[in-house]
Amino acid sequence: MGALFIDISRGENVTFAPNYRDLRGATMSRQISRTILLAALVICLVGMAGLTHGHAQFSQPGVQVSNKTLLERLGYPADAKLLIVHADDLGMARSVNAATIKAFESGLVSSGSIMVPCPWLPEIAAYARQHPEADLGLHLTLTSEWTPYRWGPVLSKDRVASLLDSSGYLYLTESEAASRASAQEVEAEIRAQIERARSFGIQPTHLDSHMGTLYKNKTLFEIFLRVARDYKLPVRLSRELVSSTDYLPSILSPSDVAIDRIISIEPNVTAEDWARFYVNSIKGLQPGVTEIVIHLAYDDEEMRAATADHPNWGAAWRQRDLQFFTSGVFRQLLQENNIKLITWREIGKMQYPR
Amino acid sequence: MGALFIDISRGENVTFAPNYRDLRGATMSRQISRTILLAALVICLVGMAGLTHGHAQFSQPGVQVSNKTLLERLGYPADAKLLIVHADDLGMARSVNAATIKAFESGLVSSGSIMVPCPWLPEIAAYARQHPEADLGLHLTLTSEWTPYRWGPVLSKDRVASLLDSSGYLYLTESEAASRASAQEVEAEIRAQIERARSFGIQPTHLDSHMGTLYKNKTLFEIFLRVARDYKLPVRLSRELVSSTDYLPSILSPSDVAIDRIISIEPNVTAEDWARFYVNSIKGLQPGVTEIVIHLAYDDEEMRAATADHPNWGAAWRQRDLQFFTSGVFRQLLQENNIKLITWREIGKMQYPR
Repeated sequence: MGALFIDISRGENVTFAPNYRDLRGATMSRQISRTILLAALVICLVGMAGLTHGHAQFSQPGVQVSNKTLLERLGYPADAKLLIVHADDLGMARSVNAATIKAFESGLVSSGSIMVPCPWLPEIAAYARQHPEADLGLHLTLTSEWTPYRWGPVLSKDRVASLLDSSGYLYLTESEAASRASAQEVEAEIRAQIERARSFGIQPTHLDSHMGTLYKNKTLFEIFLRVARDYKLPVRLSRELVSSTDYLPSILSPSDVAIDRIISIEPNVTAEDWARFYVNSIKGLQPGVTEIVIHLAYDDEEMRAATADHPNWGAAWRQRDLQFFTSGVFRQLLQENNIKLITWREIGKMQYPR
Repeated sequence: MGALFIDISRGENVTFAPNYRDLRGATMSRQISRTILLAALVICLVGMAGLTHGHAQFSQPGVQVSNKTLLERLGYPADAKLLIVHADDLGMARSVNAATIKAFESGLVSSGSIMVPCPWLPEIAAYARQHPEADLGLHLTLTSEWTPYRWGPVLSKDRVASLLDSSGYLYLTESEAASRASAQEVEAEIRAQIERARSFGIQPTHLDSHMGTLYKNKTLFEIFLRVARDYKLPVRLSRELVSSTDYLPSILSPSDVAIDRIISIEPNVTAEDWARFYVNSIKGLQPGVTEIVIHLAYDDEEMRAATADHPNWGAAWRQRDLQFFTSGVFRQLLQENNIKLITWREIGKMQYPR
């Protein structure tokens, strides 16, 4: 019973979308969704039983053992609705950079993370240097998923042979990366990505993992967490994710922070239902700290070509995200629902006060 | 007097544009142009003196010692005008790939060369596999010249440290590359680029050098030539280039082939004069084998961003080239002037018969 942290006391009913579902491709199946949903339900029920026997969520090792909620620790009242709107994949393509910078300028997208091995890194690094206030983290990258357009590791290929497929690029899928990469080489590569970002003048505010590779198993997540702690950076982590992943509670410490929930749209949402999904998610937003993970780009020639055989998280998908998250509709929804945009910088300052 | 091969007997007066001027950036100055022009003039005069003393162009070691002209060796009459229209930089960007493939399909651009270290290699490699008849060579790459968008070497960075700038990419300029790269590492890297191309199913028909780096000095050109001979591939080389470069004649052997001339537009041609330059070049084309080196892309968001601080060989430049070399005007000029498009494949078959 030791490690169940679903906050069922709030009776939340948000869309189930943990961040390790930030996947692209065939590996993302509805079957998995159903299995996870079922598992979450079972855990939830067991968790309820646990709560009746001694407030399990505060009495066990793991995240947020403080009696204070994350909201309170951030200095907000218990009914505050805080939202990080987070754009992934910066540096991946010009189209991604251009769309995300436009979204930052709208003031409606509060955060983003950068893929250091990708060829458009220098452009977004220049933006980071010119905008030191921007909330930019690193989207630690162990995959290269677009078949016509690919990249390799930051470290010398000889040193990270287990991270490369037969063509010498990073793996196409997170499953291959997670099953074939040596732990030692993963750690060396992600540390090198952070050091390289810093050498480009990027001061990352947080860390997450492209396609969720670093959440795929305990070994990888332990590396991820160790590196994040060393650099005193918060990682993308939600209480839902903690509660639904068997290995997570045992390796988290009281000083680790999980936000309340992460929302990300999935391939089962049709183009027609795109805005409705987001509108409903925002209207139904519960108090606490929520991150909406989005993927921005234009539906242009570069992006269409890169994602030609890969409509999920593809060009049209990304332009739909861009359209919604820079719209007047979204701006009005934030106001009407008393939702305040925050950044990972605030969470980092709380987690690692200086 | 030993090695002067300007074919002054034809009284040609083509635009002076040797292929090592395939440069991009500040290093490309008019001062250099004037110096080279002056040097060529001096060599030309000395060459004329030499000819009066014994037909120096056939009696010395060097290219085309056979009494047959290149045209004759290719099986054409002495007045034939053969033209290779060659698009550089394939693989560099989506915009370059898309524009060049469109130009190939027009039938008016006969050849191109691929940059193996660049991120869009897989897309053009797929094209090469699907079009085994396409005349695709390798644009051996030792530079990464667009500041917001960059790439590294094919070999493990540890093995080719002298090819990398402080940010771990290939150098921004061909001057840096030529002066800092170790000969051993250059040879290893260009061999690796050829092997990598082959592993992607590309069967290159010829070799040239991105930004002309491998023509920058004798050491580099010797490497280039040794590798090309090993792989039995023709290299971009013109009689004009041979005659105007002091080190070239001494290292060329009778089996090496130089075409008659290379034409490439330069930054001193204004956008308004673009078509006129090409029209005049084509109308004035002399018999022999000529290569026009062009750079194709769309003037789109990806290309504009990549070349934002670099208008020479930039997005608009490339779209102007695309527009002219897929035009009805160009098609008609070829017909009216009895110009036949050929490829490097034909030259390679002649140079290395199987």
